[in-house]
Amino acid sequence: MPTLRLALCQVNPTVGDLVGNADLVRRWTRQAAEAGAQLALFPELMLTGYPVEDLVFRRSFVAASKAALEQLATDLAADGLGDLPVLVGYLDADGPPQVSADAQPGRGARNAAALLHRGTVVGTYFKHHLPNYGVFDEDRYFVPGDTLLVVRIGGVDVALTICEDLWQAGGPFAVARRAGVGLVLNINGSPYELNKDDIRLPLVRRRAAEAGATIAYVNMVGGQDELVYDGDSMIVDATGALLARAPQFVEHLLVHDVDLPPAKEPVEGDEEIADDMRIVHTKISDILPPAPTGALARGGIIEPVADEAEVWQALVLGLRDYVDKNRFPSVVLGLSGGIDSAVVAALAVDALGPDRVVGVSLPSQHSSAHSRADAEELAKRTGLDYRVEPIQPMVDAYLANISLSGVAVENLQARVRGVILMALSNQEGHLVLTTGNKSELAVGYSTLYGDSVGGYNPVKDVWKTLIWRLAKWRNADATRRGETPPIPENSIGKPPSAELSPGQLDSDSLPEYDVLDPILIGYVDGDLGRDGLIASGHDPAMVDKVLRMVDTAEYKRRQSAPGTKISIKAFGRDRRLPITNRWREHG
Amino acid sequence: MPTLRLALCQVNPTVGDLVGNADLVRRWTRQAAEAGAQLALFPELMLTGYPVEDLVFRRSFVAASKAALEQLATDLAADGLGDLPVLVGYLDADGPPQVSADAQPGRGARNAAALLHRGTVVGTYFKHHLPNYGVFDEDRYFVPGDTLLVVRIGGVDVALTICEDLWQAGGPFAVARRAGVGLVLNINGSPYELNKDDIRLPLVRRRAAEAGATIAYVNMVGGQDELVYDGDSMIVDATGALLARAPQFVEHLLVHDVDLPPAKEPVEGDEEIADDMRIVHTKISDILPPAPTGALARGGIIEPVADEAEVWQALVLGLRDYVDKNRFPSVVLGLSGGIDSAVVAALAVDALGPDRVVGVSLPSQHSSAHSRADAEELAKRTGLDYRVEPIQPMVDAYLANISLSGVAVENLQARVRGVILMALSNQEGHLVLTTGNKSELAVGYSTLYGDSVGGYNPVKDVWKTLIWRLAKWRNADATRRGETPPIPENSIGKPPSAELSPGQLDSDSLPEYDVLDPILIGYVDGDLGRDGLIASGHDPAMVDKVLRMVDTAEYKRRQSAPGTKISIKAFGRDRRLPITNRWREHG
Repeated sequence: MPTLRLALCQVNPTVGDLVGNADLVRRWTRQAAEAGAQLALFPELMLTGYPVEDLVFRRSFVAASKAALEQLATDLAADGLGDLPVLVGYLDADGPPQVSADAQPGRGARNAAALLHRGTVVGTYFKHHLPNYGVFDEDRYFVPGDTLLVVRIGGVDVALTICEDLWQAGGPFAVARRAGVGLVLNINGSPYELNKDDIRLPLVRRRAAEAGATIAYVNMVGGQDELVYDGDSMIVDATGALLARAPQFVEHLLVHDVDLPPAKEPVEGDEEIADDMRIVHTKISDILPPAPTGALARGGIIEPVADEAEVWQALVLGLRDYVDKNRFPSVVLGLSGGIDSAVVAALAVDALGPDRVVGVSLPSQHSSAHSRADAEELAKRTGLDYRVEPIQPMVDAYLANISLSGVAVENLQARVRGVILMALSNQEGHLVLTTGNKSELAVGYSTLYGDSVGGYNPVKDVWKTLIWRLAKWRNADATRRGETPPIPENSIGKPPSAELSPGQLDSDSLPEYDVLDPILIGYVDGDLGRDGLIASGHDPAMVDKVLRMVDTAEYKRRQSAPGTKISIKAFGRDRRLPITNRWREHG
Repeated sequence: MPTLRLALCQVNPTVGDLVGNADLVRRWTRQAAEAGAQLALFPELMLTGYPVEDLVFRRSFVAASKAALEQLATDLAADGLGDLPVLVGYLDADGPPQVSADAQPGRGARNAAALLHRGTVVGTYFKHHLPNYGVFDEDRYFVPGDTLLVVRIGGVDVALTICEDLWQAGGPFAVARRAGVGLVLNINGSPYELNKDDIRLPLVRRRAAEAGATIAYVNMVGGQDELVYDGDSMIVDATGALLARAPQFVEHLLVHDVDLPPAKEPVEGDEEIADDMRIVHTKISDILPPAPTGALARGGIIEPVADEAEVWQALVLGLRDYVDKNRFPSVVLGLSGGIDSAVVAALAVDALGPDRVVGVSLPSQHSSAHSRADAEELAKRTGLDYRVEPIQPMVDAYLANISLSGVAVENLQARVRGVILMALSNQEGHLVLTTGNKSELAVGYSTLYGDSVGGYNPVKDVWKTLIWRLAKWRNADATRRGETPPIPENSIGKPPSAELSPGQLDSDSLPEYDVLDPILIGYVDGDLGRDGLIASGHDPAMVDKVLRMVDTAEYKRRQSAPGTKISIKAFGRDRRLPITNRWREHG
């Protein structure tokens, strides 16, 4: 039985950075070669990053992607790495978009994978199943492939597949069984979602059983706008046994020796089959890196961590990559002394270090003494750059010139804070972080152009009750490691308040969060209607109250900053509702 | 040869308003009946409005849509209108979404049309071609239909189709020829786009030739978020002759008698055919409204108007419907004396009347005397509610407390204006209108949370050079009608300036707009890359300068207010680019 040493390269590409991403492939291929690998694989659309969205429609970009692939094949050979077969995702197109008198503009490109060997592209696969739900729009961009490429490598028949091909039964994996392959490679750009790692392993196991073959699943890692990729690359054999599994949220080279069945028949030509796909067999040169001697390579199995730790890592990585990939030197945020801004500050310090985080206390006449003290305490514990800018002189200047009352005065204070943070951003170059949690966003409990000001919101997709859990987990984790817990206990324990009017509490306007959040989760994440929510046991009057708030806050949510997505339905990217809309769930 | 009197009901539904939209159908069916119609048709997704976006995923909404359809059939009969067959678009679903262990969430609904007659649904058609390009995401929402329904009505075989079915050759219209129909009904939610009316008629003609049948094309009218539907309903016979055509941008009942070939064979059962569609023949009751006597009904042919008039009407309708459908009492905007705010003010007064428009002059120390005078002159000519709020006291309050310089001070002034407009909005209930044109948005020449503040931007998709053309057209049109031109000539003629620093002009930072706009149009609307733009004759250095600005302004565009889409690629809805993105076209 042949043994192949596989290298799953769980790396962090940057969208649009063809040169930098190709360099990543070269560096990691060298590491893979040094580890004795005989086959290396990189994620989906590795060369372009994922998703490239409407860049697909620009011919100059598609042409550059194809040229970068050819250059990469040449460069790997020049690096002395040509003998190692490398599978890499890239963007392809058959030719210019088809235009007839009636044709609509659109798809013509391919979500492609290329096998590189000895300086050339020796095989190409086009993704068959194109996801077009949730965050995915691949029917907008790509034409599906209809051919399963089976490549004989070192005496083993290996099928190439991409991401969504794994998520559907009866597709390329069923065809792979017909082709009698021993190994299926599956390259991914699979975004993180809370509990998705619990789904992935059983899914890979089912597909391994369907194909009757070992699966090598490699996923990218890193943040891209609202998405964060968690890695979680793995190898599962035909019996469903988990052979190796990479850690989440970090770049990782997973090297593992797998025993594979020898290919049974000679490589043949094309073969038509039933399931709307062709199988094409091919074979690459027998010149491969030599079979490793010495101890077997074992990638090890990293178990996924608990939910809070996992979410924290996702938010840290999403924030760090947004800041660094967009080349911001630093971030600034308002510190109210409350839990949301404390958690965002702690995330920012974990992501960027305290020297790149500016926290500004912006007290008004309604700010309590404990708010200022809690903000200062947070700054002391985390070491961030702390400043105080009282807002009352500016607020008074408006009130002296314009007659305002009620909510207009409350919002005015939040907007003066927004103007100050943006002024600091313009003057000093920081990215402004927004700190509104998902519960606030859902019900519109925020000031447009006030506390919603900012370029990125790390907790945009985090319900308020999860904010508290994260804060407690982060502090406990610090204590466990013998470090200072970053978040003042008083910020965690006190009742939440916007402090925009005397004695104001969130609970004056909103239900308690442990009542509010379950309704929001059912309505937003679960698409439950009023009747469904009531059937789940929620109080009808409370359901009506909450749904009324959510239905009327759509416009504010559209204007909110991007932020890392961690749930099934983050506001923005994968939840699209009309603003002008008379449909109301509430009674 | 049978003659049928058709009524094409070009109406303005509201998304989500099932009750209101059903009432519209009842009222217009009555008018159609009073005009002697024997067949009435309403637009695509008439009952729900279009597009309903992710409301499709809420079972409560789908169930309500289906129930509303049944109720409508009953109500029409109770209204005494049951004999008149009515074709109406609605949202259907086969059942709950399919969920298996591997299945992804998503599509399960149908973009459907129902024929109502004598109190019941007598026929149903599911849209076959689902558009998934530009503003359309129908692969996200719908399962395609595979059956062409042919209904015998008054001795004529009539095929039912929906919107995109018309845009593709070899689809339902080719199948309609196989079925030997005499008339094809095509119901639409087809958004306005500059020059689209020039495409539509030739397209309908080609499809009429393909089907060998008359086509009755009905489109909705009205604004929905960023989309505006222009109507332009029409009837074209099998020879390609245009029989009747409705005006754009207004509700209209187009009643026309058409001579149609009698159905040749008896109604049969199902018939399988080749082009991946089935044909199903059916027949409705022979009880129809009596054949009209007297003069033939002639719908008339309204020729489309010139580009500037057409765009102006689109922007007025989009703005009016956004304000009214969202139930805002009034709008407020800043009047700088410049051309953009003058055009937006004139649009708002045309859309809402002067009593619902508040214009605020917000002068600073850099505002010129002519700016204040031009703003005041505009107010006088249009009759809007005019106010003056000098911003210097508030600007000074910030500068006394925070050390700012350069661009930070320029932006501060724009943000103080934004805070004042939002305060007036909160205090008095107006919707804030944003006035930045598409050229500014493209190159990022605006202040985030400053002049970009607002809930709706009527000129979001209007290039600066078109702003000037619109202003001149509107004034000339007023003169032609013997009215006062609304826009001060000085606002049109003077060089554009942001007036945020002494003597500042747009041309200090930007190329002249007649140089800038053609490059932007090629890059944004045309997806041309650097090489393509240079090949079009643009100066390479200028191309690099402009592309650098566009590439770095993506985040600001994401934060901009919705506004009526009039071009092939409005920012926002149908142009999706990553923010984190290292691909750069410029050298």
